[in-house]
Amino acid sequence: MSDRQIIEEKLNQARHILNEFDVDLWLTFARETVLLPDPALELILGLHVTWHSAFLISRTGRRVAIVGHFDAESIRQLGLYDEVVGYHQGIGRPLLEALDQFQPRHVAINYSQGDVAADGLTLGNYRTLQGYLANTPYANRLVSAERIIAALRGRKTNTEVARVRQAIATTEALFEEVSHYARPGMTQRQIAQFVRDRVDGMGLGYAWEKEYNPIVTCGPHSPLGHVAPGDVPLERGHTLHLDLGVRQDGYCSDLQRMWYVLDNGEMSAPPDVQQAFDTVYGAIKAGEAALQPGVPGWQVDASARQHIVNAGYPEYMHAFGHLLGRTAHDGATVLGPQWERYRDICELPVEVDNVFTLELHVVVPNRGIMSLEEDVLVTANGVNYLSHPQTQLWYIRP
Amino acid sequence: MSDRQIIEEKLNQARHILNEFDVDLWLTFARETVLLPDPALELILGLHVTWHSAFLISRTGRRVAIVGHFDAESIRQLGLYDEVVGYHQGIGRPLLEALDQFQPRHVAINYSQGDVAADGLTLGNYRTLQGYLANTPYANRLVSAERIIAALRGRKTNTEVARVRQAIATTEALFEEVSHYARPGMTQRQIAQFVRDRVDGMGLGYAWEKEYNPIVTCGPHSPLGHVAPGDVPLERGHTLHLDLGVRQDGYCSDLQRMWYVLDNGEMSAPPDVQQAFDTVYGAIKAGEAALQPGVPGWQVDASARQHIVNAGYPEYMHAFGHLLGRTAHDGATVLGPQWERYRDICELPVEVDNVFTLELHVVVPNRGIMSLEEDVLVTANGVNYLSHPQTQLWYIRP
Repeated sequence: MSDRQIIEEKLNQARHILNEFDVDLWLTFARETVLLPDPALELILGLHVTWHSAFLISRTGRRVAIVGHFDAESIRQLGLYDEVVGYHQGIGRPLLEALDQFQPRHVAINYSQGDVAADGLTLGNYRTLQGYLANTPYANRLVSAERIIAALRGRKTNTEVARVRQAIATTEALFEEVSHYARPGMTQRQIAQFVRDRVDGMGLGYAWEKEYNPIVTCGPHSPLGHVAPGDVPLERGHTLHLDLGVRQDGYCSDLQRMWYVLDNGEMSAPPDVQQAFDTVYGAIKAGEAALQPGVPGWQVDASARQHIVNAGYPEYMHAFGHLLGRTAHDGATVLGPQWERYRDICELPVEVDNVFTLELHVVVPNRGIMSLEEDVLVTANGVNYLSHPQTQLWYIRP
Repeated sequence: MSDRQIIEEKLNQARHILNEFDVDLWLTFARETVLLPDPALELILGLHVTWHSAFLISRTGRRVAIVGHFDAESIRQLGLYDEVVGYHQGIGRPLLEALDQFQPRHVAINYSQGDVAADGLTLGNYRTLQGYLANTPYANRLVSAERIIAALRGRKTNTEVARVRQAIATTEALFEEVSHYARPGMTQRQIAQFVRDRVDGMGLGYAWEKEYNPIVTCGPHSPLGHVAPGDVPLERGHTLHLDLGVRQDGYCSDLQRMWYVLDNGEMSAPPDVQQAFDTVYGAIKAGEAALQPGVPGWQVDASARQHIVNAGYPEYMHAFGHLLGRTAHDGATVLGPQWERYRDICELPVEVDNVFTLELHVVVPNRGIMSLEEDVLVTANGVNYLSHPQTQLWYIRP
């Protein structure tokens, strides 16, 4: 299925969502999106625009695009908008004419304090829009489109889920290759380069910045976090951790996997390492059990977090999960604690057709990090794993 | 010179600009910049951030970064910020503590109705910032950073100019290759693919979306504007036009070149084609003559525009020039007419060390478009061409 067809699916979905939330009109107002992308545009257009541009989507299904004249032809060619207006000197008049066509009671615009993917309207563009609407009936009808965008981005179509599955399958095959490649003495940098060469060779993209992708953590002396792989070597008796996400046909994976480097004479991991793996694995299962449609995100996080704390480990200082799709952090609804940083978005309910990552870690003193991440689809009947969950530690034999 | 060194140059430049404009503190406030980039960050950081992040740059030269804890290490490694605070649950307290350190009279934040490159603050982030500042002395001290960002982005350092030159040289070599490659009967798509294969083969990026880069216009039947190359073939007696920009080491070119396909028996272009070339070339020279430090952008456009109109052609429906650098449309100051669409930014003065494109076109009936674009540097003593200007039509012989 082509990208254009996915956008057509999303546009049809948008119509239903507008009716569900009883909103007459959704307005995306953007400019120079190469420099300042509005994340909503990849769902409803899939192209960049240059001058001030407006995309109006009505609950009736009617769609109007108003763009600089030289952007009009390529948008017409898409055939996704009923009317494409190419203006020459300014967007003000055609925008007001279009609003008058729709006579909306509410105009939803793209801003959100909680949801980055719904916050594409810049302050300057907002003020420009306010200027155009001044002294019109629409000046006081602006509302946030955050619920619309969260639903549209969060509820994956079957096509979207298939693309995420494909990215995950690619990633799992790369982990398999790492299992054969990694040996004691290799550095973080070498292992990362091996993976990147394979990703580049397949012509794929990265789910986040290539500089930190994959994150490679060798034993207890690698700095943690979003750090470029350094020169710490893999050693016997230490853990090896990879956090890798690829972008394939516009959709992403985000997975973490764990290896243990057997020490001389060892046939399996020592108890401290095995206990950490079992605890992290158990926490993911505890979170999975709580992951049900309608449950607020923080409750899912709390189940996993409690499992870790009960086992005597310190809490992880991040969310248990996030949405996954066109990007690694794919919009609203975070499975995170009720911290300032996750305000509002951890209160949102889990929905059917959401794709979430489930992730957490503990640290094993003198051994390294123990961190797993799985990708799952929420259905009406429970959780479907899109990844093959890691159920046991993988061993690297010297 | 490394990217880090360029950022260090820009940060030092920022300090001088803050003093020049008598602004105490510049605050960039952003989050999840993979999804919502703030264009200012590529000048002052060169990395992405995840959670709400604040970058404070003072006129004293002191710089503080406040970021989610897992982003802190890589920013510390850069060594560009005097203090890097990695927070765990929320940015509110460390942000207010940092502001109390600086006690600024004004806090410049990134919004602008005119300048896209200075408009990185989203409406949601602005409201979050307002929430943090409520009931503090700083709530009423917010001002726009648009003048700071326009100066910082617009005044290119020698290193930046050298990188633009390099991208231009690469582009000119590609035009040379097109001259040897293009033959009557080839389609727009074939010619574009030839260029893209070369750009991809060199591992370079594109100054704007690859889908429309290069723009290839064959004769009078190609649609104009930002349109993907189609299947219109190149024919004798028609013009061939390319608009191509590459991104090399983070900096861009943006050039347009013209060919004419000689018809049977022709030794040179017919008068209508030659006159169009001469007029467009003359208009660029007229604009160049007006391009002086201190002159408002619209005056430069007016010189070129008047030249076209005097020669009996219709006006071009866009600006005569734009800044060029990290992107093809590189921020404020447009050499454009006083239309609604260019409000404010066409009133800004040309400055020393600005790099501008100079571009315009006319249409030759039954022949095709005639469109040229050059890239120039403004100096105290006049205009330096960074490109080798096209002074005569190039011919394709059947």
